[in-house]
Amino acid sequence: MTKTILLKNRPKGTPTLADFEFVTDNTESSIANGELLLETVYVSVDPYLRGRMSDAKSYVPPFELNKPIHSGVIAKVTASKNERFKAGDYVSGMLDWKTQQISSGEGLLKVDPSKAPLSAYLGILGMTGLTAYLGLTQIGQPKAGETLVVSGAAGAIGSVVGQIGKLLGLRVVGIAGTDEKIEMLKSKFGFDAGINYNTTKDMPAAIAEAAPNGVDIYFDNVGGPISDAVFFSINKFARMVICGAISVYNNTQLPKGLSVQPFLVKNSALMQGFIVSNYAEKFPEAMTQLSQWLAEDKLTYTETVVEGFDNIPTAFIDLFEGKNTGKMIVKL
Amino acid sequence: MTKTILLKNRPKGTPTLADFEFVTDNTESSIANGELLLETVYVSVDPYLRGRMSDAKSYVPPFELNKPIHSGVIAKVTASKNERFKAGDYVSGMLDWKTQQISSGEGLLKVDPSKAPLSAYLGILGMTGLTAYLGLTQIGQPKAGETLVVSGAAGAIGSVVGQIGKLLGLRVVGIAGTDEKIEMLKSKFGFDAGINYNTTKDMPAAIAEAAPNGVDIYFDNVGGPISDAVFFSINKFARMVICGAISVYNNTQLPKGLSVQPFLVKNSALMQGFIVSNYAEKFPEAMTQLSQWLAEDKLTYTETVVEGFDNIPTAFIDLFEGKNTGKMIVKL
Repeated sequence: MTKTILLKNRPKGTPTLADFEFVTDNTESSIANGELLLETVYVSVDPYLRGRMSDAKSYVPPFELNKPIHSGVIAKVTASKNERFKAGDYVSGMLDWKTQQISSGEGLLKVDPSKAPLSAYLGILGMTGLTAYLGLTQIGQPKAGETLVVSGAAGAIGSVVGQIGKLLGLRVVGIAGTDEKIEMLKSKFGFDAGINYNTTKDMPAAIAEAAPNGVDIYFDNVGGPISDAVFFSINKFARMVICGAISVYNNTQLPKGLSVQPFLVKNSALMQGFIVSNYAEKFPEAMTQLSQWLAEDKLTYTETVVEGFDNIPTAFIDLFEGKNTGKMIVKL
Repeated sequence: MTKTILLKNRPKGTPTLADFEFVTDNTESSIANGELLLETVYVSVDPYLRGRMSDAKSYVPPFELNKPIHSGVIAKVTASKNERFKAGDYVSGMLDWKTQQISSGEGLLKVDPSKAPLSAYLGILGMTGLTAYLGLTQIGQPKAGETLVVSGAAGAIGSVVGQIGKLLGLRVVGIAGTDEKIEMLKSKFGFDAGINYNTTKDMPAAIAEAAPNGVDIYFDNVGGPISDAVFFSINKFARMVICGAISVYNNTQLPKGLSVQPFLVKNSALMQGFIVSNYAEKFPEAMTQLSQWLAEDKLTYTETVVEGFDNIPTAFIDLFEGKNTGKMIVKL
């Protein structure tokens, strides 16, 4: 029996369970030459999937209605007629939200459970780690002694960005939404300071206080009013890595905010949208560095693991209420 | 008799004549060794001066109250005890709003009235031309066949940016505020298309129509709602040169507008504030290219010349109502 999750409706505002449909297929899967049969082990749910559920123009085509959604998945090879893979191997790749599926092997990477926990290949050694490392280094251009502010700091990407910032000699300030998250940023991930945006009345003043030398790099996962507040403290030649805008992904109207142009002119500052796939030629270098730091225990990570295939839509929806700490993963 | 214009008040909103004070000094000027006596010939009035009249943090220190304002000036040397200059020379530099003044010669450049009209050294062969050329090439990174949109296109910088865009093989779309300006952009400066923002109801649609292949480079002189409209048409990897934000310089409250972060993420797009003084090492290369194009009649320019020292404040204030076409200059 194979279960599949289809996109039933394009969400209006925040996605709801009614936007997803479960279907069950009892046909037995059989593979042709060159193919493999995969059993899903871990499914990554990520904010960027919200964009693909809309049909607005974006950097990747939207999901089709009544077709399976797909995202980063770790799967076990249960049968193989492909010489690159054998039964028992584990792979990572962009795969459908299905309990099992057939693949040609294209785009799949073998992952080694003896080197790191399997779920790490969806996180710190996957797109999450690559995004944090390459966004910070390629656009942020950090120099030791500078100040980095990270929004969504307790999220999967943000918590890695902050740690890499510390490894590179930066003062690191994290913005997150609960006191528990702020405490964790400091005690677990080594951030120098944290700001709880839900309890802080004057965000620009709080940022100015946490970054007394001004902000040289802003790694932005959230957009919206939190990001607007950072502009009041940016230094000359500041770099703003625009990695995500989770605060406005569910908006049904165009988001309004601060007009940022005068701040950019005054400070000769840069804002640049970051998509990790544009930096594919840098992946090997980044993986080498991340693996080394992980082996040296210089990087740590947090996962929120939800159990059960049926809970994938709920886990995805919970992202927008900040219910996760670190990478949100569903384990089958 | 020497007349001087002082900054009397920091303007609130749009500057008024009451923000300026004229003083007259009848002492005869006498120069010491190493000094020169300068008689002002042309004074440049520019939107960026508005920023220096406020005491907000900026890339240059603010003007002091009850002190002379200064800007780009062309002056004639009437007496010299400095070996680099002799009486009868013409110089350009950042000089006080005075009918005559004493200088140490520091920061002054000799300009040659036989090679170009003197006023050109405040415009196309001065900061205006350098800003247009270096902003477009260094941040815009133009590639032949791409589409460039320029706001404030009939202004001093915009009209040069558009012409350089054509020389570099771009499709060039200009945004300006009257039908006469739009007509001039096309007939005089060779723009491919123009949009009158005062008569266009749906700016995003007009931009999409004028840029059927999308916008690769946006050279922004104005900020505000005009710039917001451009984001709906930007291409992947678009570059936005943020050179000025004249539409909001006089705002007394923080300007609000489109939240641009989601557009930057979707398109891996870049916005960068541009200040010409950051690119001083590129000035010689830029001056060589601009002088060559000018000598080959490949660049043309427009000036709005106002007569009389006493009219400097009025000319400056008129900038914010778009009364100038091209470079606004006061001739003494």
